[in-house]
Amino acid sequence: MPTDIEIARAAKLQPIGAIAAKAGIPDAALQPYGKYIAKVDTSAIGDFASRPDGKLILVTAISPTPAGEGKTTTTVGLGDGLSRLGKRTMIALREPSLGPCFGQKGGAAGGGHAQVVPMEQINLHFTGDFHAITSAHNLLAAMLDNHIYWSNELGFDARHVAWRRVMDMNDRALRSLVSSLGGASNGFPREDGFDITVASEVMAIFCLATDLADLEARLGRIVVGRRRDKSPITAADLKAPGAMTVLLKDALMPNLVQTLEGTPAFVHGGPFANIAHGCNSVIATRAALKLADYVVTEAGFGADLGAEKFFDIKCRKAGLKPDVAVVVATVRALKMHGGVARDALSAENLPALEAGLSNLARHVENLRKFGVPPIVAINHFTSDTAAEHALIQNFCRNHLGVEAVICQHWERGGAGTEELAAKVATLVESGEADFAPLYPEALPLREKLEKVAREIYGAAGISADARVSARFAELEAAGHGDLPICVAKTQYSFSADPTLRGAPSGHVVPVRELRLAAGAGFVVAICGDIMTMPGLPRQPAAERIHIDANGQIEGLF
Amino acid sequence: MPTDIEIARAAKLQPIGAIAAKAGIPDAALQPYGKYIAKVDTSAIGDFASRPDGKLILVTAISPTPAGEGKTTTTVGLGDGLSRLGKRTMIALREPSLGPCFGQKGGAAGGGHAQVVPMEQINLHFTGDFHAITSAHNLLAAMLDNHIYWSNELGFDARHVAWRRVMDMNDRALRSLVSSLGGASNGFPREDGFDITVASEVMAIFCLATDLADLEARLGRIVVGRRRDKSPITAADLKAPGAMTVLLKDALMPNLVQTLEGTPAFVHGGPFANIAHGCNSVIATRAALKLADYVVTEAGFGADLGAEKFFDIKCRKAGLKPDVAVVVATVRALKMHGGVARDALSAENLPALEAGLSNLARHVENLRKFGVPPIVAINHFTSDTAAEHALIQNFCRNHLGVEAVICQHWERGGAGTEELAAKVATLVESGEADFAPLYPEALPLREKLEKVAREIYGAAGISADARVSARFAELEAAGHGDLPICVAKTQYSFSADPTLRGAPSGHVVPVRELRLAAGAGFVVAICGDIMTMPGLPRQPAAERIHIDANGQIEGLF
Repeated sequence: MPTDIEIARAAKLQPIGAIAAKAGIPDAALQPYGKYIAKVDTSAIGDFASRPDGKLILVTAISPTPAGEGKTTTTVGLGDGLSRLGKRTMIALREPSLGPCFGQKGGAAGGGHAQVVPMEQINLHFTGDFHAITSAHNLLAAMLDNHIYWSNELGFDARHVAWRRVMDMNDRALRSLVSSLGGASNGFPREDGFDITVASEVMAIFCLATDLADLEARLGRIVVGRRRDKSPITAADLKAPGAMTVLLKDALMPNLVQTLEGTPAFVHGGPFANIAHGCNSVIATRAALKLADYVVTEAGFGADLGAEKFFDIKCRKAGLKPDVAVVVATVRALKMHGGVARDALSAENLPALEAGLSNLARHVENLRKFGVPPIVAINHFTSDTAAEHALIQNFCRNHLGVEAVICQHWERGGAGTEELAAKVATLVESGEADFAPLYPEALPLREKLEKVAREIYGAAGISADARVSARFAELEAAGHGDLPICVAKTQYSFSADPTLRGAPSGHVVPVRELRLAAGAGFVVAICGDIMTMPGLPRQPAAERIHIDANGQIEGLF
Repeated sequence: MPTDIEIARAAKLQPIGAIAAKAGIPDAALQPYGKYIAKVDTSAIGDFASRPDGKLILVTAISPTPAGEGKTTTTVGLGDGLSRLGKRTMIALREPSLGPCFGQKGGAAGGGHAQVVPMEQINLHFTGDFHAITSAHNLLAAMLDNHIYWSNELGFDARHVAWRRVMDMNDRALRSLVSSLGGASNGFPREDGFDITVASEVMAIFCLATDLADLEARLGRIVVGRRRDKSPITAADLKAPGAMTVLLKDALMPNLVQTLEGTPAFVHGGPFANIAHGCNSVIATRAALKLADYVVTEAGFGADLGAEKFFDIKCRKAGLKPDVAVVVATVRALKMHGGVARDALSAENLPALEAGLSNLARHVENLRKFGVPPIVAINHFTSDTAAEHALIQNFCRNHLGVEAVICQHWERGGAGTEELAAKVATLVESGEADFAPLYPEALPLREKLEKVAREIYGAAGISADARVSARFAELEAAGHGDLPICVAKTQYSFSADPTLRGAPSGHVVPVRELRLAAGAGFVVAICGDIMTMPGLPRQPAAERIHIDANGQIEGLF
C-alpha cells in the first residue's frame, strides 16, 4: 500500500473552478489560492441566502484509541460514496493544525483513498487561516500588555490576566514563562504562556461566527482580565476587535478543495476538541447546506464529547438540524474496550469484542437522546475477521436496532462506502430525525453539566470543590448562566479516567476549573488534565520531513 | 488629498493574468492568491534561465528623518515613469511587516499615487510568506528545546542558546523572558525572548537563497548554540532544515502584483535593514532581471547602510551588477541635516539647506566608490520652494557632477517622474557603471569593518573592547573570515550617534557586539542600540483599524 502522500500525489486533481462549478459556485465567487484551492465569497452567489438547506450528516465515533478510529476518512469516504450514488454532496471538515504535523500524528486530511487534496498544502499553511487567527489572538495580547505598559487606565490586576499567547507549533517550552523581563522599557514582569493556536478562543469564535459583524461583536466580548474588584475587562475595552476582524476578514471565507474522487469539500476552521467544541466553521457548514443536498461533516473525539458539543453548542447556536449521525467503530477499538491490550488487538477475540460493544451501545443510545437517528460504520482493518464483523452487525441489529455497515474507503475510496451511503440516504429521507439539544439554555450551568454527566457519560454526577462551586455562582451572577457547557475531559473514556474503557457507570466527574469563553459563547468545564500546548516527541516527524531530489515533499503523512 | 487606502481602493486593478502577460509570464507559471496577486513559478517559464539580464536600478536615499524620505514611493514612481516611456520595466520591493501596521508607521506599500496594490492584502497577510518564515524559525526553536528536553545528546550549553523565537508583531513583553517554567514536563528553564519576524536569520536566508537547495543548505548552517567547549551546534545537527524548507517551499516563489498604473512588481521578502541586509529577495530581483529590460529596486535606510549592504552583500553574493543608483532626497531632510528643528522644517531656509547638502554629497561620493553612477531624486513636498529646489540642483550639478530631478510621483504618479525616468534611462544606457564591492572577501573581518567605517561613514575608525576583539579572532579562527560585514547602526547619521546630522567626520564607530549569521552568510556588527522587537505606541493604530459598514478596511494607511 502506498503512503497517504504518495496516493495524494498520484491523483489527477481537477482545477478548482471545475469543482466549484460542480457545487454551483460561480467563478466570480472564487478567490483562488493556487490551482486547486479557493476561498468562496458566498455574497457573490446570487440567490444564496434564500436557498433551501440540504440534509446534514454528522460523522462521529466510539471512544477512540490513541490512533483514532477514522472519522475523517469515513467522512470523506461517505461523501464520495454519496457522490457515486448521484447525490449532490459536499463535505465540511476542520483544517489541520500545523504543529502536530511535525510531531507524531502527521497530517489530518484523511488517509488512504479517502483524502481531501492537495494534502500537502492543506496540512501545511493552506490558505493561512490559522496564521490569521494566530495574528489576531496575539495582537490582542500585545495590545493588552501595551495598555498596562503605558497607563493601565483600565485597571488590570496583572495577576489575573486571562489572555495567553498562541503559536501553531508543538512547543512545550512556551507553556509557562515569565514575560516582560529585562527592565522598565519592556513592561511589568508577569506570568504568561502560550497555547497552540487551535486552543485559542479566537479559533472557537471564528468557527461559531455567522458573519463579519457577528465575529467582531464576539471578539469584543472576550474577557481578557479583571480588576482588583473582580470586574471583567474585555477585548472591546482595549479597542482591539476592529483590527482583529480586519486580520480575519479573508480567513472567514470558507476554503474549497476536493476529495481524491472530486467531491467538493469545505475545509475551514479547526478548534480543539477538548478546550473548545471541535468542529469546522458554522459559515462553512451553512454554505455547504445551501450548495448541496447532502452535507457530511465530522466532530472531534468520540460522540460523548464531539457529537454532544456539535449538538448542544454548534447546532443550537447556528440553528442547524442534523438528520443522521454516523458512529465510526473499529474492531480493534471495540476489543480494546473489551479489555485487550494494545499489542494484542490484531488477533481475533470474540468475547472481548462482545464486551467492548458496551461502548458502542452507549454512544448509539446517547445520539437518540438528541433526536438524531444513528447508523454504525465499521471502518475495516485488514486484521478484522468475518466473525468479528458478524458479531458487531448482529449486536447492532438485534440489541441496538441500528444498521452496522462495513466500510472500505481507506482501501477503495467511495466504492468502499456505497452501501453505507445508500443506507444513510435512506435514513435521511425517512424523516426520522427530530433534533433537539440535550438541555435548555435556561438551565443553570451546574445543572447543565450534571445532565451531560448523567445522561451522556453514565456518571452518578459531578464533583466540584468550594472554589469551583463559587465560580459557578460567579458566572451565573455575571449573567453567563444561559451559555452552553463545553466539557474538556479525556476522549478515551466516558469517565474522566482515560483507563476506564467500555461503558463505565456510576462514576463521578470531577470539575477542576471553569473557564468563561464569553466571545465563543460557552463555559469550559475542565474535568481532568487538559493539555493546551502539546510537546514534540523524542523523534519528531520534522526530522524526516524534507523535499526530495524531484522537488516532492517527503515524510509528511 | 485622499488617503493612501482611498487612492488604492479607487484604482481599477487589472487581473493578475494581464499583469503577468505584460511581463511575459505565462499563465502556467502563476499560482494565484485571489484575483490580483500571484506567486510565480519561474521553472514554468520556458527559456527563463538562458535569457539575458535587464538593467538594475537601485533606489537609495540620504540619511533619513524618522518619517522616511520616500524611497518606496520613488521606486514605484520611477518604475511607472519608465513604463510611460515605453520601457519594459519591473519593480522589486520588500514585503511589509505586519507588526508595524498596528503600531505607528502604517503600511509600506508606497503612498499617494505611487503604490503597489492591492495595498490591504500586501500590508496584511499577503501570500503568507512572513507567516511561513515565522513557522520555520519557530519550528527550529521548538526542535532545539525538544532536543534538550529529551536527551541533549548534542551537548547544548543552555546558557548560550543563540536561537530566539520570532513573531510578526510589535510586542515588547516578549523581548526578554524565562521559558520552560512550570515543572519537569515543560523542560529546563532558561532565558529566552522573541524578535520580530523581519529580524529572523531565516528571513535573511530566504532573501539571499538562490533556490530551494541553496535555501536548505543555508538553513543547515545556522548556528543555534554551542557546547561548553564553545564548539558550534547547527540547525543541521538538529535535523531541522528539511522541514523548515518544506515550510518555506511555496513562500520562496516571488509574489507578483501591480502598481496603480499597472507596472508589474515583485514584492518578496523583507529582512530588517539594521540587523540584516534590508532588501527584497535575490530570487525576485533575478527573476525581474530576466523578465524586464529595466528593474527598479530599493534598499532600506540611507545609502550608508542600505546601498552599502545591497552592494557588498546582496550584489556580491548574487552576482548582480547595478547600473544606476538613485539617491532620494527631500528639502525637509536636508534642512534637518543643516540644523533645523523638526517643527520648523516647512519654512524656507536656504542657509540650512546648503549646510545640509553635505549629507547628500557624502552619499553621492560613496556610491561612486562602488562604480555605480548616481542621480539625485528630489521627492517633492508642498512646502518646498523654487529657490530651495534650485539650490539643490545647482549644487548637484556644479559640485557633485550629478543631475538632481524634481519628482512628483506622490501627487501625480508616473507622470511626476517622467523626467527622472528619462535621465535614469540615459545614464543606464551610457554604460558608465562598473560595479565592484567596496572590499574583497579575503580581507579580515575587522579590516572590512574599518574600511566601511572610514570610506563610507567618514569615521576615523572603529573601537572594539577586548571581548569584541576576541570575537573577531574567534570568527576568523572558525573560518568565517571571508564573510561580508552587515553593520547594524542608526540610520539617522553617518556616525553611530543619531543626533550627529550632516556629514560628520573623524568620529569613531563603537562595535558593541558581533553576531554570526552563518546561514545568511554575513557577520553582523552591532554598533549602538539596535531594537529587534519593537513596541506599540501609547495609541496604537490598531485601535482605529476596522471594517466599515460597506465592508471596507479603514484606518490602515
